[in-house]
Amino acid sequence: MNREIHLASRPQGWPTADNFRLVEAEVPTPAPGQLVVRNRFMSVDPYMRGRMNDVKSYVPPFQLDAPLDGGAVGEVVASEAEGFKPGDTVLHGLGWREYALLDARAARKVDPSLAPVSAYLSVLGMTGLTAYAGLLEVAGMQPGESVFVSAAAGSVGSLVGQIAKLKGASRVIGSAGSPAKVERLKALGFDAAFDYHDGPVRDSLKAAAPDGIDVYFDNVGGDHLEAAIASMNLHGRAAICGMIAQYNETEPPAAPRNLALVIGKRLTLRGFLVGDHGHLRDRFVRDMSGWLRDGKISYDETVVDGIENAPEAFLGLLRGQNLGKMLVRV
Amino acid sequence: MNREIHLASRPQGWPTADNFRLVEAEVPTPAPGQLVVRNRFMSVDPYMRGRMNDVKSYVPPFQLDAPLDGGAVGEVVASEAEGFKPGDTVLHGLGWREYALLDARAARKVDPSLAPVSAYLSVLGMTGLTAYAGLLEVAGMQPGESVFVSAAAGSVGSLVGQIAKLKGASRVIGSAGSPAKVERLKALGFDAAFDYHDGPVRDSLKAAAPDGIDVYFDNVGGDHLEAAIASMNLHGRAAICGMIAQYNETEPPAAPRNLALVIGKRLTLRGFLVGDHGHLRDRFVRDMSGWLRDGKISYDETVVDGIENAPEAFLGLLRGQNLGKMLVRV
Repeated sequence: MNREIHLASRPQGWPTADNFRLVEAEVPTPAPGQLVVRNRFMSVDPYMRGRMNDVKSYVPPFQLDAPLDGGAVGEVVASEAEGFKPGDTVLHGLGWREYALLDARAARKVDPSLAPVSAYLSVLGMTGLTAYAGLLEVAGMQPGESVFVSAAAGSVGSLVGQIAKLKGASRVIGSAGSPAKVERLKALGFDAAFDYHDGPVRDSLKAAAPDGIDVYFDNVGGDHLEAAIASMNLHGRAAICGMIAQYNETEPPAAPRNLALVIGKRLTLRGFLVGDHGHLRDRFVRDMSGWLRDGKISYDETVVDGIENAPEAFLGLLRGQNLGKMLVRV
Repeated sequence: MNREIHLASRPQGWPTADNFRLVEAEVPTPAPGQLVVRNRFMSVDPYMRGRMNDVKSYVPPFQLDAPLDGGAVGEVVASEAEGFKPGDTVLHGLGWREYALLDARAARKVDPSLAPVSAYLSVLGMTGLTAYAGLLEVAGMQPGESVFVSAAAGSVGSLVGQIAKLKGASRVIGSAGSPAKVERLKALGFDAAFDYHDGPVRDSLKAAAPDGIDVYFDNVGGDHLEAAIASMNLHGRAAICGMIAQYNETEPPAAPRNLALVIGKRLTLRGFLVGDHGHLRDRFVRDMSGWLRDGKISYDETVVDGIENAPEAFLGLLRGQNLGKMLVRV
């Protein structure tokens, strides 16, 4: 028997467990060129909230009464495709189910002896590349610059801060949503960290970065982006990766109200998707593997067990209950 | 006798004539290394509104009870500096007065036989370079792309649209504030133009650019920037030159509310000042001189006579009463 999570209804504002449905289905059989994969880990990511809305975007919306999808890693259990055999570990895009039926070209083999398989969904996967590409290519961080990252205890943010230090940032500041997360950031080597509940972000950032910031890696939007614009030095750059603060808002947000500062300060705000930066993958894997081998990068995972708990894992992610990467062990 | 315009008080919101004062002073005498210039034309520009506020910015604020300053062109009447003699025409930064006392290194000689001297304040000067650099370098417009410019009947905007066509834009759209200005844009070769009073900018732009836009040259901010973000194609770029819609607002504006679209569309918003793009000056002068000689560029000037009317010229500029460059003939 296969179990999968369907989208039962489209959320208005914050999603709830009622928007999801656990459905039993048959374990699929591969046609020529196809694989069946028993998923071991699946990823839940903030961008999935956008796909629950029925709007045109860079990825099509999730369909009602059909399984959700997203990054997953698992073992091939049946193959009708050359180059894949049972027991192979593959990375692919059909999470939210126990067994996935895939075209072989949509699967990428990974080596489970090099790293725990979950790492291919986090530090060695899309999450890590997002941090790497956004910081170094989109924002173009240079040694000696000062970097601020929001949602810094999350999967992408915690890597952004560590990569920044490894690449020579003069000062790295992170914001997070609890005292425990702030402590974790300090342990990860951030020069300063603050809990955004403790006061206006603008004031907390000014105190943490008295000489301003050169680069902002935005995972949050709203008041965080406004604060970053206020603190930016001349020629500052923001790599805009996500705006989790507003994904569940039913009214569009008003911030940033200080956008006119981009002129006098000559700021650049640039949105990006990791999919445009695949040309960095080899360099990223080489750098990141080395840093992991040398113990220079730490990464956190928050693991929830059981496909039936995947909706709760996703809702917990939106509420900030994760430290590092939020994963479901299927 | 010399007459000059002083800042009498700092405006709150929209400035009025009471914020200015006409003051008589002595005609200055040059010290060694200095010139005295009889100004012929002076420029009024939107950025001057920001300098009337007592806030730190990229240029220092105007001082109370002292003359304003800004671009001007005039004739040397006395020189104690090598290389300058009475009768020379010079471009410099001390407008808002009839006679200017300058260090020679702050003056640049221009050739009055090549173009009317006022052109050095408009099409051949900072105005023209702003349009050229913003469109071609900051936004990186490529042939075949679609371009939208706001305040398109203004000095910078009208040049942006014409340069875009000359550099191979597939479609150029402009917004302006009156039916007469819209007609003028069509005469200048814009493919589409609309009066922003005729309805929500977002709707007017969608109708004028049914296939979206690739580049936005922003002179206005607010609802114009929001509309541009809504209409932008993937990998679109905005060169943010000015936000005249909000210079006189006492409450910060709420728009753009759709800023999160920069992620999925991978948009870049970049503020700029022409002063950072001086390396383009030679190329700009070569291009622009050629276009003017060949009759490929038209430029409008709205000229107000008399230094005593400079405040009214500036207020008229903020109200959009100019077609093309607003100048004062001193």
